[in-house]
This record gives sequence, structure tokens and C-alpha cells, in this order.
Amino acid sequence: MKEIITSIENQKIKNIRKLLENKNILKEKKFIIENDNLIEEAYKNEMLLEAYALIDYDNYLNLDLIYVSEKVMKSISDLKSTPKIIGISKIKENNELGEKIVLLDNVQDPGNIGTIIRNCVAFGVDTLVLSKDCANIYSKKVLRSCVGMIYNINIIIEDLENIIPKIKEKNIKVISTALDATSEINQINKDKYAIIFGNEGNGIREELIEKSDMKVKIEMSAKCESLNVGVSSGIILYNIFRGKHE
Amino acid sequence: MKEIITSIENQKIKNIRKLLENKNILKEKKFIIENDNLIEEAYKNEMLLEAYALIDYDNYLNLDLIYVSEKVMKSISDLKSTPKIIGISKIKENNELGEKIVLLDNVQDPGNIGTIIRNCVAFGVDTLVLSKDCANIYSKKVLRSCVGMIYNINIIIEDLENIIPKIKEKNIKVISTALDATSEINQINKDKYAIIFGNEGNGIREELIEKSDMKVKIEMSAKCESLNVGVSSGIILYNIFRGKHE
Repeated sequence: MKEIITSIENQKIKNIRKLLENKNILKEKKFIIENDNLIEEAYKNEMLLEAYALIDYDNYLNLDLIYVSEKVMKSISDLKSTPKIIGISKIKENNELGEKIVLLDNVQDPGNIGTIIRNCVAFGVDTLVLSKDCANIYSKKVLRSCVGMIYNINIIIEDLENIIPKIKEKNIKVISTALDATSEINQINKDKYAIIFGNEGNGIREELIEKSDMKVKIEMSAKCESLNVGVSSGIILYNIFRGKHE
Repeated sequence: MKEIITSIENQKIKNIRKLLENKNILKEKKFIIENDNLIEEAYKNEMLLEAYALIDYDNYLNLDLIYVSEKVMKSISDLKSTPKIIGISKIKENNELGEKIVLLDNVQDPGNIGTIIRNCVAFGVDTLVLSKDCANIYSKKVLRSCVGMIYNINIIIEDLENIIPKIKEKNIKVISTALDATSEINQINKDKYAIIFGNEGNGIREELIEKSDMKVKIEMSAKCESLNVGVSSGIILYNIFRGKHE
């Protein structure tokens, strides 16, 4: 007979509910994940701390499950339809700076952050640095749009002003994307770079542009002023990545 | 003394309310637009049919306004905070096929469609064809994410099966984006192309891939399976656009 947690006042369950609030995620250094795909990724990456499931969940990964009643599951999920399983994932703690770095300055849309993570993994970026005022990277909206890629990259949350000197110490050039730029994407060193992408409405803060070693722009028709930040990051990272092979 | 519509039962106001439902937009061939930027674009493009404003609206474009009370404005907007102005825009009717064409097969996310419109305008695409099962292109979510670019491109809503023979008659190659593709982006003819992008989860329907003259893929790390469709379209269109100048 399997034991089932049926009380929403159970201490474990209360602790999970805390993680529904973004502010507690960074404090507790863990986050809720909600679909098979993401739970599988967490498991494979040895980041899965616990998994809570309904009694009829098809445990195809043979996970060590904690069973809960439907009422309890409802209390720890904010999805419209109650999931059959939720997992608790560790936050990957690796503050090491690689040599292929993307920095985000106050990016606010969780969908954009998820898309950028996906682009980074697709095109070989090893480190993603988010300024503290970016949207929460461990929120469900980000997790949904990055389709499980979150374990494939080092994530650092830090003021960009603090991290830029460390990048320069490593002899890596800091690059801003700016409309008045004069450099082209193909002038970026393919093996070592740190590229900043800015806020959706305001772009990169002036102080950070001033600290950059190089400014690049994406050539486009005069009819269009700017691109979505997920798209710009995709175009720049793809062209750096492909430059290698040519 | 300016005349102000104060009744939400006024016939004009009732007609506008119909446009809050997507299904009526295509039937009536007009759509609601909600911010200064978009209203300015509609006006400059001679697509603005009417504009409804609160009495204290700063009419900097010197538009021929119809004044309404705040209650009436609330009834014709579904924004959280009542706007000071809304416009009614014509749908640009131009079914002419250009020579730089993007086709969307069942793209469902309005944000993705808006991003793709922006990419198309940025990189010189002249015609955007949407299959009838795509998300409504004149919905507010699309309009928000395409930042006023909707007037800068021919838009055709048609079954892709019907439009592909017409494209081929014009001697334009139909290109699919597919994971098992063997062709590279730089093999695409820069002056004449028709590229299909597919549904977020399922990609392009098999029947359409079979009808294509060429399949291209975006090279990426093995860690990542696929990109967001807004990003893929940006990467492919940018690289075709830039190819021209090199």
C-alpha cells in the first residue's frame, strides 16, 4: 500500500507552496517544474530533488515518488488543469564565467528570456548572466518557453556593472548591440565574446554601452527600427556560431 | 462645444464592439487599433477610417475625432486601463503576390506572428501568406508585437495548398524549413523566394513539405532540437537579406 499525502497543511506541501512565489525561488535555491519533458531533463542532469505525483501517474522514469491526493496536487500547482506530477529542481549553482557569454540587461518578458536561453544553447553560449532586474528566470513562463534547455547553460544572476570587469580581466571583449553601431557581426571573435542584450523598450543602459569594447548592429531595412530581443540574439549568435565553420 | 457620444447603445459604438471579436474583423474588413504609434502608422498609410477619443486627448496629429465619454471608451476597449484614443483601421486589401514571400502554416501564437511580421519588414519580404488556421493577424496581441509594421507588407489569408501553385507559376522556389534538410540558407535565391514556417509544436505539414522545391535547416548544437519560429524566421530572412550585399 502506497502512502499518500492528503493534507494541504502537510509541512512538505507548505514548503512547496512557497515556491509558487518568485521571490522565494532564489532564496530557497529550488523551483517547481511541471511537465514530463522538464522533469526528465532535471532527472538526467541530477537536479531533481523530489517529485510529487498522483497515484495513477505512469512512472516511466522509475522515479522515487511522493504520492499526493488530487486536492494536494491542486494546492501546489497554478496550472488550469491539475498535473499528474510536479518536480522540485535544484538551481544549478555554477558562478563560473565561461568564454562565450550573453548578458541580459533588464529583460522583462519571460517568453523572451526563455527564447534567449534556447538560442544560447543552440549556438554554443556557455554562460548567461542576468541583471538582477530581469524577469525571474526560474518562473514557469520562462521554463515553458525554453523547453528544458535551462540545465544546459551556466546561469549567473548579478549586477552587470560587477561582472563586466571580471569579463575584461579574462581578456574577453564586451559587445553591445546598438542602433548607431559601426561594427559588423563578423568582426566578433568567435571563440571569446560577451554580448549584452537590453530591455525590450529601452535597449541597453547607457552606462553599460559606455563600458563596451565594441558596438554591433544588425543591418535591416529602413522601414523597420528594431527587432524583438529574442530574434536579435538569435541572429547574432547564429552568425557567430556559423562563422566558425566557414 | 464638442459633441460627445455618451451612450454605449449608440449604433456606431455597437458596431465597434463587434470588432472586439476576432471573427468579425475579417468579415467587416476593419480592426481596432489602440496606441498612438499604431494610429499614427494607420493615418500615414491612409488606412485610418475613424478615431474615437476622450475629450482631453492631445490630438497632435490633428485627426478628425469622434469624442466619447469614458464609459463609452471602456465599452469599446478590452485594455485594463481605458485608452484616451482608439482608431478603426481598414484591412489593407492587396492579394498580389510579390517575389519575396513568407508563408505561415498554422502558426498559433499571436506574439510569434507579430514577431514574424516585424522580421519580414526588417528584411525586405514583400508578401506574407497565412493559412486560414493561423491565429488572427488583426488581433491586438499580434498588433502589439509587430509594433506598427502591419501596413508595410502585403498580407494574404489563404490555404497554402491553393497559393503554392500560383507561386510556382511565377517561377519562385518554395522552400521548407525542416530538421532533416540538406540545403543551406545561402543556397536560397536572394531575389525570389517563398519560405514556409510551420506550427510551433508540429512544424510544417507533411503535404506542404512534399510540395516544396528545397528544404533548408539552421545549423545548431546537438544539445538543442529546435528554435522558436520567430527566431528561425529572423535568422533565415536576415541571412538572405545580407547575402545580397556580400
